[in-house]
Amino acid sequence: MSTQPFFPASVYAARLDRASALAAEAGLDGIVVGPGPDLEYVVGVEGDTIERLTALILGPGTAATVVVPRMELAKVRSTAVGDLGLAVADWVDGEDPYELVAAALDTVSRVGVSDALPALHVVPLARRLGVDIELATPVLREGRMIKDADEVAELRRAGAAIDAVHRRVHEWLRTGRTEREVAADIADAIVAEGHRTVEFVIVGSGPNGADPHHEVSDRVIQDGDVVVVDIGGAVPSGYNSDSTRTYVVGSPAPDAAERIGVLVRAQQAAVDAVRPGATAHDVDAAARSVLAEAGLADAFLHRTGHGIGVSVHEEPYIAPGNDLVLREGMAFSIEPGIYFAGQWGARIEDIVVVTADGCERLNVAPHGLTAVG
Amino acid sequence: MSTQPFFPASVYAARLDRASALAAEAGLDGIVVGPGPDLEYVVGVEGDTIERLTALILGPGTAATVVVPRMELAKVRSTAVGDLGLAVADWVDGEDPYELVAAALDTVSRVGVSDALPALHVVPLARRLGVDIELATPVLREGRMIKDADEVAELRRAGAAIDAVHRRVHEWLRTGRTEREVAADIADAIVAEGHRTVEFVIVGSGPNGADPHHEVSDRVIQDGDVVVVDIGGAVPSGYNSDSTRTYVVGSPAPDAAERIGVLVRAQQAAVDAVRPGATAHDVDAAARSVLAEAGLADAFLHRTGHGIGVSVHEEPYIAPGNDLVLREGMAFSIEPGIYFAGQWGARIEDIVVVTADGCERLNVAPHGLTAVG
Repeated sequence: MSTQPFFPASVYAARLDRASALAAEAGLDGIVVGPGPDLEYVVGVEGDTIERLTALILGPGTAATVVVPRMELAKVRSTAVGDLGLAVADWVDGEDPYELVAAALDTVSRVGVSDALPALHVVPLARRLGVDIELATPVLREGRMIKDADEVAELRRAGAAIDAVHRRVHEWLRTGRTEREVAADIADAIVAEGHRTVEFVIVGSGPNGADPHHEVSDRVIQDGDVVVVDIGGAVPSGYNSDSTRTYVVGSPAPDAAERIGVLVRAQQAAVDAVRPGATAHDVDAAARSVLAEAGLADAFLHRTGHGIGVSVHEEPYIAPGNDLVLREGMAFSIEPGIYFAGQWGARIEDIVVVTADGCERLNVAPHGLTAVG
Repeated sequence: MSTQPFFPASVYAARLDRASALAAEAGLDGIVVGPGPDLEYVVGVEGDTIERLTALILGPGTAATVVVPRMELAKVRSTAVGDLGLAVADWVDGEDPYELVAAALDTVSRVGVSDALPALHVVPLARRLGVDIELATPVLREGRMIKDADEVAELRRAGAAIDAVHRRVHEWLRTGRTEREVAADIADAIVAEGHRTVEFVIVGSGPNGADPHHEVSDRVIQDGDVVVVDIGGAVPSGYNSDSTRTYVVGSPAPDAAERIGVLVRAQQAAVDAVRPGATAHDVDAAARSVLAEAGLADAFLHRTGHGIGVSVHEEPYIAPGNDLVLREGMAFSIEPGIYFAGQWGARIEDIVVVTADGCERLNVAPHGLTAVG
């Protein structure tokens, strides 16, 4: 976690104003933003997720206030909070921080909280305020979903960095090595190619690739293995990369090559479906129908994608039934996959950003089954 | 995160039964345990904290059920969940997991959730169930707070491992090196001495030590610096270490040596106050009064300690006003500190376990100001 905001204070000032205005539009008296990506987006610091409450209180008629344990005060003042002129209400062990939240709010009838605020704080806050707590997601996601030019530049930087890693996977992925050994080399390269942190490294070889959430294991890579490599990290600004490619060590079984050819077409169809006005459902359906036509509907076990920004998974979710209308500036993954239990799996994932008439694809490393080793 | 439970399935079976019984005693119809240390304690896996709901549902009259996204199913089945014969209700994107929680509960009038469950799930769950959600903390903390012999053995192992690191700090801490360089060596040693993960490394030199939550920086260590080193990690079972020692590089200012002498006495007084029947407040007060007598009351900025186990910070909190009565098997830190803004700080921290007539101290590396360099 960076403790220094990446953008100038004016960027965060604008985001704070926007969030307050959106809260007013939504009829909320206030929103309480706890540590996590929402806080990172709004003031440039992620905060510490601990048992002591740290929160930013925003809303119409409310002076933006940070409630913070006194022992965290120095750290908080050194961030954008200092430059933004936010009110600070600090507390020490034995005091009740929920009183400070209540005091910071002008009126309390509808109050929203950030997604990540844990029950540990949600429940006593609801009790103190005497209202049903709502999610501030609709207010906070609006800003986070639509990336401005500077944010897109950071996602582009992240995309180029992870592409550089994929282009080097052939250096490390070969028979006789374990998934864990390959993953360690990839993790080093994620940092070497320009990320600040490694967020995840999935190396799913042979049957392990058939589990979409397999991470790594001590399985030794065999000749002929199809291998899913799904990797990402955050660049210094905090924006994330996330890209998957599927490799084969030596020669694949003929059915694998053919099925992965279908997967490439499905992924391309979803990319082609992205434009302002289309829905998240439409994009998901585009990938799903290509797979269904090839008899692979049941092999696709998850949604087509997720938004990305200061967190790896965020709105919009590209899933069946999501009628969210895509708008310029939205950034998300397109990552259909096919999974054959006990045998192998494959997934192809790019990040795309919605443009005025389609999308920009941020990952351009070769998409098809790539032979290595 | 380990995906394999450490203890035999019978241990988790007993913990599950205990949690259900305690839920019944507390008058709860059910508890919903999301990913985090509570889940790790009860079934041996921490789970993934993501936007898709994974949760264990327990309670009187309720068959213990795991609600899990289908894509996580293989991973969940490979854990204790498989051996424990829990019911599994899986769901796919587009379905409503809160319906599955509701279906798993026999009756719904009082429902508790684990501390760590994010608002993202708490709010829609409350809406679906139509009740005010409560915290299951009182139910879940009862089991987690009282460590059995096997858990104490793991905390003892963790304590010995972190002591071994403190005994080697002199190898790395010297003038001319940055805090970050020293911290990197310490992190390597935390793993080398028997931890599975590094949870935190604080190296607070000179004025940085005066901020209790300083982590590391590029500050170059100077001759005469007082340096706070607060470190910990998890051993393979998932149980954590956490120990702080204060070092001086070369010769300290005379007032530092004297004040740290008082701090050592304050820490010892708190350790001496630990016994079944004493309250958390009593232990905190024991440290605080020694510091107050020496005119250092205002220099002590935080509570005296926190519980420790499968998480680094948990119940019981050793804080002013906490009238929780200590019982045999409770494990917590005793870590008074003194902080002089712009100058230096010091903290001394051991983990102790309450015994029949006092406590066992799990950290025995020398407590006083240790000269290095």
